Amino acid sequence: MAKRNLYLSNTPVDEAQALYLDALKDLIAPAEEEIPVTESLHRITHRAVFAKYCSPLYNAAAMDGVAVCSEITRGAREGAPVILRPERDFLVVDTGDPIKHPYDAVVMAEDLTELPDGALSIVQPAAPWQHVRPIGEDIVAGEMILPSFHKIRPIDLGVLLAGGITHIPVVKRPRVAIFPTGTEIIEPGQEPKEGDIIESNSRMFQAMVTEHGGEPTRFAPIADDYDRLKAAIDQAVDEFDMVIVNAGSSAGTEDFTVHILRELGQVLVHGVAIKPGKPVILAIVRGKPVIGLPGYPVSAYINFENFVIPVLERMNGECSRPGSRVEAVVSKRLVSSLKHREYVRVKVGKVGDKLVASPLARGAGAAMSLVRADGFCVIPQNSEGVEAGQTVEVELYRDLAEIDRTVVAIGSHDLILDVMADLMPTLYPGTFLSSTHLGSMGGLMALKRGEAHIAPTHLLDEETGVYNISYLKKLFRQPMALIKGVNRVQGIIVKKGNPLDIRGVEDLTRVSYINRQRGAGTRVLLDYLLKKKGIAPEEIKGYDREAATHMAVAAAIQGDSADAGMGILSAANALGLDFLPVGNEEYDFAVPVAYLELEHVQNFISILKSDLFREKVEALGGYETKQAGTILYVDEV
Amino acid sequence: MAKRNLYLSNTPVDEAQALYLDALKDLIAPAEEEIPVTESLHRITHRAVFAKYCSPLYNAAAMDGVAVCSEITRGAREGAPVILRPERDFLVVDTGDPIKHPYDAVVMAEDLTELPDGALSIVQPAAPWQHVRPIGEDIVAGEMILPSFHKIRPIDLGVLLAGGITHIPVVKRPRVAIFPTGTEIIEPGQEPKEGDIIESNSRMFQAMVTEHGGEPTRFAPIADDYDRLKAAIDQAVDEFDMVIVNAGSSAGTEDFTVHILRELGQVLVHGVAIKPGKPVILAIVRGKPVIGLPGYPVSAYINFENFVIPVLERMNGECSRPGSRVEAVVSKRLVSSLKHREYVRVKVGKVGDKLVASPLARGAGAAMSLVRADGFCVIPQNSEGVEAGQTVEVELYRDLAEIDRTVVAIGSHDLILDVMADLMPTLYPGTFLSSTHLGSMGGLMALKRGEAHIAPTHLLDEETGVYNISYLKKLFRQPMALIKGVNRVQGIIVKKGNPLDIRGVEDLTRVSYINRQRGAGTRVLLDYLLKKKGIAPEEIKGYDREAATHMAVAAAIQGDSADAGMGILSAANALGLDFLPVGNEEYDFAVPVAYLELEHVQNFISILKSDLFREKVEALGGYETKQAGTILYVDEV
Repeated sequence: MAKRNLYLSNTPVDEAQALYLDALKDLIAPAEEEIPVTESLHRITHRAVFAKYCSPLYNAAAMDGVAVCSEITRGAREGAPVILRPERDFLVVDTGDPIKHPYDAVVMAEDLTELPDGALSIVQPAAPWQHVRPIGEDIVAGEMILPSFHKIRPIDLGVLLAGGITHIPVVKRPRVAIFPTGTEIIEPGQEPKEGDIIESNSRMFQAMVTEHGGEPTRFAPIADDYDRLKAAIDQAVDEFDMVIVNAGSSAGTEDFTVHILRELGQVLVHGVAIKPGKPVILAIVRGKPVIGLPGYPVSAYINFENFVIPVLERMNGECSRPGSRVEAVVSKRLVSSLKHREYVRVKVGKVGDKLVASPLARGAGAAMSLVRADGFCVIPQNSEGVEAGQTVEVELYRDLAEIDRTVVAIGSHDLILDVMADLMPTLYPGTFLSSTHLGSMGGLMALKRGEAHIAPTHLLDEETGVYNISYLKKLFRQPMALIKGVNRVQGIIVKKGNPLDIRGVEDLTRVSYINRQRGAGTRVLLDYLLKKKGIAPEEIKGYDREAATHMAVAAAIQGDSADAGMGILSAANALGLDFLPVGNEEYDFAVPVAYLELEHVQNFISILKSDLFREKVEALGGYETKQAGTILYVDEV
Repeated sequence: MAKRNLYLSNTPVDEAQALYLDALKDLIAPAEEEIPVTESLHRITHRAVFAKYCSPLYNAAAMDGVAVCSEITRGAREGAPVILRPERDFLVVDTGDPIKHPYDAVVMAEDLTELPDGALSIVQPAAPWQHVRPIGEDIVAGEMILPSFHKIRPIDLGVLLAGGITHIPVVKRPRVAIFPTGTEIIEPGQEPKEGDIIESNSRMFQAMVTEHGGEPTRFAPIADDYDRLKAAIDQAVDEFDMVIVNAGSSAGTEDFTVHILRELGQVLVHGVAIKPGKPVILAIVRGKPVIGLPGYPVSAYINFENFVIPVLERMNGECSRPGSRVEAVVSKRLVSSLKHREYVRVKVGKVGDKLVASPLARGAGAAMSLVRADGFCVIPQNSEGVEAGQTVEVELYRDLAEIDRTVVAIGSHDLILDVMADLMPTLYPGTFLSSTHLGSMGGLMALKRGEAHIAPTHLLDEETGVYNISYLKKLFRQPMALIKGVNRVQGIIVKKGNPLDIRGVEDLTRVSYINRQRGAGTRVLLDYLLKKKGIAPEEIKGYDREAATHMAVAAAIQGDSADAGMGILSAANALGLDFLPVGNEEYDFAVPVAYLELEHVQNFISILKSDLFREKVEALGGYETKQAGTILYVDEV
């Protein structure tokens, strides 16, 4: 076998961060450039900025009216008005006009009576300086407008200009070179062949550098070629403030990066106790930070946040500004290892008065888990994990106000949940649907624990042949209802053209099967059908291989790693596979009656009843929506 | 007098908003354009986006190692290894490599022993599909990646590209024309003459439009010329999605805007019950929203938030996302009128376990109050105000985490507070100083009520001649300390060259004076000096005219609206005025002993002791810093 760099260290995250930032301490510092104020939005001041002029620049009328000398109005009263002569006793002024000697007060238009000869009559004396904005009331020349290291907002920009400042010293944006590497990667838009990976991390890094005040330059991918990669890094170190090399940071046969960086400079850390994301490289080459990040998107993202952003912030003179943190109850046991700090992406929902965090897929490659996440919780290095129902601290990506208006669905998976998640913010701006797929039984259990508003479910009562209702009666003590969803066709998904000639459940014993997870209604249905035919689960090859969604089953069949699996017609249609129907089932939403009153749950129900929902769902194939949105109160059934 | 449009309506804010958005309902809707994913950061999806490819695209190795057929490893155990022959039983794979038929599992490099002939030995069977990422594990082709109306983040961009999407339908940015108007306005950078106003609102609007997803076009200022302004608006309505006209929205002699808009289209609202900001115009011209905003920066800003942003959000399909709201105790009585809804800018600090909101300057022109504010609270239209100590809801501009690390200073004003506010984030990134100027006594009272960490104070005990200490002994029951600040020179600020030949306090009876507010140490000092000389306050013309800071006093003298005022040397120096010293005083920081332990208070003290602080303060003139940062425990004095 080829040589591998097997020896990754397991440095704790905080230690690695501190060690690296300390080594960089005297090498990176904010640099300054002067730019026009009009182009300074979201830039960071490098030095304090002081006003050049006062604002207002002079004593100014604060109202529309006339400027007068307060002295001559003394004694004015109802019945004994003071008459002001034009061109002698007053001057008409609009708001903002200068008030000059000898005038020292403004009388509002409303308090004046115009006489036929153009003179004005007032019946109340004007106090000195009334309705006059004194010079410098808002800004005094020489006063500090903004301190150092302040991020410029629209209002700052207005005040700077009003204070006579046209150019300001800001922190120069750190220039960051980004090198995607790997022989197997292709650019977006190219048609992928087997073994190809579409290069997307570098574009994500570009956006992250931009968001953190840097200026990214992304280079074209470099194949796994030691000399070319070395030359590219070598040159970039001269031209940029920081270099990021993506993938090749681990210890595989083609993972050169660490060797190159050892030759060019100093590798301070290779391998950090973090999950996902262990194989990170923190190096310094000729005084410049060079960071190697792993290829898995989630690992890349988490390491970027932990190691690249702190360096960018130092270069910007910014401090780490932690996002908002909340306490939430975890809905599922989280096992972790003592060996590393683990970042678990979670969805967060507000159910009743508690925040509930539901863990998402934990693999390093599960980039969608970052898209779906509302935040993450950190399981410390020396913890074995967290039990369901325990409280954890969650760092939020989303606003709490948005989370308040999110319907939390936990339970069975169906493609109509995607449709609903899309229609919620479209038809009711500001409302959202968050769905987690734990199967029908898993959803009802979550509902019982108060961790979801609704549980999508399709559980057949074998005795009565009725879906869902009997389970709600059996499991819940509180008043429950069923929001009717869709009738859908379940069946066996097979390859296009059905090459193995599968005709029914009895044929599954001779092919390679892919099953759904325990507690999924679709698995319950398979078990029921097998029992009816007298087939033991052990006779099905692949019975223990579990996929979490209908689409994952379809993808496995399309990808040739299984021949058949139970699922819904829409999933087969989506991937162009064939489908043998085995029966109809009712896919509904269990809900505690108390939650029916919530505005966002009401919106959810209205959408189920809408024409738009029906059109979209019927276009997927295999659905019947006549009852969608009808509410059955379980006690009354 | 010239004709004025005296009749502004007083429409309640919510009613005006609803009326306008309702009238625009069928006229504005998000428009679509297709753009490359790589340019889509922070854009908003117009339709849901579905994956084109699966990710991974094929069954892929999840580890570095070898691909094997799980079947041939069956039975491997310690003492009875299974030997894998090269080029027959295994294939070396790196993470991400495809796993193809007949292989169905990956064995990690760590679990293999290499034999001299190149064969590999394993002592544990491989489970089918172990260390294999199944096709579509992360993203399944056809799956929804993003819903409609989702703001694109860096991670979304990565997943879109990985899912084979290179172009996406986003909401077209609404194009907004911005017209600054007024004969008196000049462009930034021009030297202002008396009566000139530097035009800065339009640049603030540009930045706000950009932040809310619009595309601003700012036109050169248009003088108050009815026909030119009318022609410009008329043309802009054809070319843009929205038009903003700034200033001229009121009812003054030169406020044409409302007449022009009535001629061109329909004015729905002119005048809203809001303070500051009453004279807003909401109009529709040929189906396009046209909004007239008042000229005062604070009024302009608040109306922009209330009326322009909701329209922009409709055009973007975004919903209003309220900022984070907190409850805070107000530190000062807030009187408001029943006639309007009032927006009060506040500073917010965390003192002990309560959040304290201190109201800032309330004038419509006080743009700096927006720069200084941490948020605002709304006093509803039908309320007369809020008492000190009552709880209000504050909408925050700043992060709560930042507020937690802010030293709250309430009390006497001195220019060294600006220096400290600048040095805090510079020397201790992530810490801040917030200072509110209520005078020495006001500060001590705030400290007593638990609304500040420290109170800058310079109060002379007339009996002992000692500064500050006796006040702390008298007023507080809890253990108190004094953080020593600076010795500073107080004196009489007069015009350059002292044309009125003022030689001492006795001369103040014959000139026009500007005083400080009640409770200010400088006013206490004046009273003390007047008493010593046997002069009654009534003998001083302007004794009742109050300014809140030393700089405001200096600005009034520079601006010719007063001849003299008491203040500190640095303020006179800053504006090039003359100064007659009357004595030295001690400007210190009162602090409850309990707060001395807080990390940000510790940082504050360290800065007082730093060389950088001493250099900067001594450069201002009139200060002596020998004792700065020394702590006196009051009980021990």
